[in-house]
Amino acid sequence: MKEIEKLFDRIVQRVNINLRELEYDVNPYVHKLIPFNQMVKFYGFYGVSPHHPLSFEFRNSNLAGSYFLGRCRVSNSLLYKSDIRGDELKKEKDLFQYQDFEIPVVDNEEIHIEDSFLIKTLVHNFSHDPETLERFFIKDTISMNYANIHGAPSDGCFLGVFSTVDLTTMRDCVIGNFSYVQAGEISHLHIPPGTVWVRNPGEFNFYYQYPEDKLNDYVFLAAGSPPQGMLIDFVEDRKDAFQRIFDVVNIEQSVDVPSSASLDRYSVTKGHTTIGENVLVAQRAYLQNAWLGKGANVQENCFIINSRLEGNDVTAHGAKIIEADVGTMVFVGFNSFLRGRPDSRLVIGKDSIVMPHTIIDIKEPLTIPPGHLVWGLIKDETDLATNSISIERLSTIDSRLTVGNMFFEGNGAGFVAAFQERIHHILEANGAFFNGAEKKGHAQKNQFISFNTIQPYPEGTKKGMFPTIVIQP
Amino acid sequence: MKEIEKLFDRIVQRVNINLRELEYDVNPYVHKLIPFNQMVKFYGFYGVSPHHPLSFEFRNSNLAGSYFLGRCRVSNSLLYKSDIRGDELKKEKDLFQYQDFEIPVVDNEEIHIEDSFLIKTLVHNFSHDPETLERFFIKDTISMNYANIHGAPSDGCFLGVFSTVDLTTMRDCVIGNFSYVQAGEISHLHIPPGTVWVRNPGEFNFYYQYPEDKLNDYVFLAAGSPPQGMLIDFVEDRKDAFQRIFDVVNIEQSVDVPSSASLDRYSVTKGHTTIGENVLVAQRAYLQNAWLGKGANVQENCFIINSRLEGNDVTAHGAKIIEADVGTMVFVGFNSFLRGRPDSRLVIGKDSIVMPHTIIDIKEPLTIPPGHLVWGLIKDETDLATNSISIERLSTIDSRLTVGNMFFEGNGAGFVAAFQERIHHILEANGAFFNGAEKKGHAQKNQFISFNTIQPYPEGTKKGMFPTIVIQP
Repeated sequence: MKEIEKLFDRIVQRVNINLRELEYDVNPYVHKLIPFNQMVKFYGFYGVSPHHPLSFEFRNSNLAGSYFLGRCRVSNSLLYKSDIRGDELKKEKDLFQYQDFEIPVVDNEEIHIEDSFLIKTLVHNFSHDPETLERFFIKDTISMNYANIHGAPSDGCFLGVFSTVDLTTMRDCVIGNFSYVQAGEISHLHIPPGTVWVRNPGEFNFYYQYPEDKLNDYVFLAAGSPPQGMLIDFVEDRKDAFQRIFDVVNIEQSVDVPSSASLDRYSVTKGHTTIGENVLVAQRAYLQNAWLGKGANVQENCFIINSRLEGNDVTAHGAKIIEADVGTMVFVGFNSFLRGRPDSRLVIGKDSIVMPHTIIDIKEPLTIPPGHLVWGLIKDETDLATNSISIERLSTIDSRLTVGNMFFEGNGAGFVAAFQERIHHILEANGAFFNGAEKKGHAQKNQFISFNTIQPYPEGTKKGMFPTIVIQP
Repeated sequence: MKEIEKLFDRIVQRVNINLRELEYDVNPYVHKLIPFNQMVKFYGFYGVSPHHPLSFEFRNSNLAGSYFLGRCRVSNSLLYKSDIRGDELKKEKDLFQYQDFEIPVVDNEEIHIEDSFLIKTLVHNFSHDPETLERFFIKDTISMNYANIHGAPSDGCFLGVFSTVDLTTMRDCVIGNFSYVQAGEISHLHIPPGTVWVRNPGEFNFYYQYPEDKLNDYVFLAAGSPPQGMLIDFVEDRKDAFQRIFDVVNIEQSVDVPSSASLDRYSVTKGHTTIGENVLVAQRAYLQNAWLGKGANVQENCFIINSRLEGNDVTAHGAKIIEADVGTMVFVGFNSFLRGRPDSRLVIGKDSIVMPHTIIDIKEPLTIPPGHLVWGLIKDETDLATNSISIERLSTIDSRLTVGNMFFEGNGAGFVAAFQERIHHILEANGAFFNGAEKKGHAQKNQFISFNTIQPYPEGTKKGMFPTIVIQP
């Protein structure tokens, strides 16, 4: 296993050099986190379909458990059970709209991952950086378990456990555990754990900070130890259910799937689960007694347990919904953890927006009224009062607003419009509006994909390293 | 499925052009033989290990069910469940001995398959042609079900069902069903069905011809129909047992395997099967109540049912041994079908040679004495008398000999020596002589191989075609 060890050391050194100004040493957090022997155990896989431009190049890397679609180039990297997709990359001749600029895309976009170590990390969507349209780069970067890199090029960064960087280009930054950043461009920042930050420079700024002690119950990372907390336990407890779907080559669907919907072959379905029309269930999603209405989507690493989603709901990457009734057109942001109880269900009224990285963990029944925006940590009615606002009221704000730990400044209507536009785009891209002929999205295009498996050298000095693999149409 | 259809037509045309002088039209035999839809169903796979030089390049082809190790390049071809290996290819700087020539090999040898359609065909070993050391070519060739291409470059040929071409370079030839040819170099020949021909020019010539009507009971191919006969039925009846091993990603071994032996992950094991030391069981082998003594091997597509092999036995590709007791150092040649019955077992004495393509199908017990060579069709004692000779006696022949339908001319001792040398080489290459430290062969080197799966486009005009795949170390 000599080569994989050398590669690990090299990546750690490169990230530390990038983070020298922040005086951040990543080594204590990643050293021995994944025993190298584990990296030999899992196969990676890539999809082949006529709907996704095909171009893969994997060199001098470990790709255990990772998933690729579209176009991706990986070199000198360790990807451990990473979710990577490439089915929304920009195409040659597309026009990229950025403020008043309309920039022509001159080549098919490709995800480039170099000198990086990504652990169970989603890398998805496309580069939203107008400076790097054709290359979605992730370089000299380490990301921890269940982090999301989403439309966010990264150079020289460390992403904590369950953190998300969304539509943001980052250089030489540390993103704390369970922090969500959507801020355009950031550089040399150390974001503390439990930050939820959405900024559109000149337009608006939303900022929430989790109380550190309370966040630690859910996600906690100490040097030298694996990540801890209720969110980690929740996911680990359900890990075995995924084993079977990776053990077999073809799997029969255990529930009826309408011809306009798709249930990924690498998702788990249990109990009495119902899939409506135009539903998209992505890989590594977990459904248990889930009722999914027309056009609902359940993205990568989401869990829907004993819950009903009425329709056109977005459940963004890594969100968990347990014992809840969710109205139509509800957006549940990345990595949110919404946990009702069998005798204390959570009700979310229609047209509501659950901000990314929201934790609702109740022991009494709780109802979020329709058309509300909620954020942060909510354990009861009292918390709800300081962690929510009606979208109507938010739309009237045009200067500043402080509610509990949340600070907002700028144009409230612009903030709401940006969110609603994005929700509409997500539903559209996922095929929620398919009418039987037009408006196809992932739900319709992802039904027939061939998955090819790839594995590393099983012994010798190259043990754990994958051979060079090049796939072209 | 447009592209796969065009490719099929193109291959058929190329083969027919090569065979124009023989006035042979392959189209009636292959048209609709494998529905194109079948070609989408199965995944191909390639092995990754430090013991096998790695280099694959697959372009514009279907590879359904095929198996690759080592170095192979496939273009514009349809390989349907073909067994291909590349673990005995010559290496750069090897010296190739041919008569008085000692020829340096200047590059790692590679199997090149172009413009060909191979159906369940083994392509193995290395090019034995001293004119093409580095490139083992198969070009403009169609081979039918269970044919074996073994060390035999081919250009412009048609190989019938269960035929074998062994250590022979062939151009523009038709090889009849169940024919075995080992003849150095052949060109523009039409070999009738059921021919067993072993020739070393200037040294010896062995020739046997099956009675056509009797052979038809075992293998028969009519234009416009799929292959028929008892041999086809025998294999088809056991096809389902293989399904499970292709359905799961990892498989637990159901029998004990000594650390010096290997049981391929893609073989079937049933009943009370015992694997001795240094045993090699290759992929797509089928074992049912098999007792395999030290150093025995069971090669691709072999079946061992209710039988005991004492040790150092060679069961060459495609051979079937049913209800038989086989002494030590017995060689059973390619595609032989040796069927005893529960109350009429077949006994094969030690040091015997069962010629390739021998059919022994008995209803009364039968014993082949030790040190005998047998060939052709044997159904009882009477047939045995006209289809066997003691190796001792054969070694004394130095002109001509006719026994039943068999004609021999040349040096009997040379013929026997050539066979024995080859048996020794096969045992050595397969690791039968491993002493715990030295003399490793496939049995020891094939224990840890990662298998990666590859699949075609699942829909669209490229349906059934595989993407371009390049694998390097």
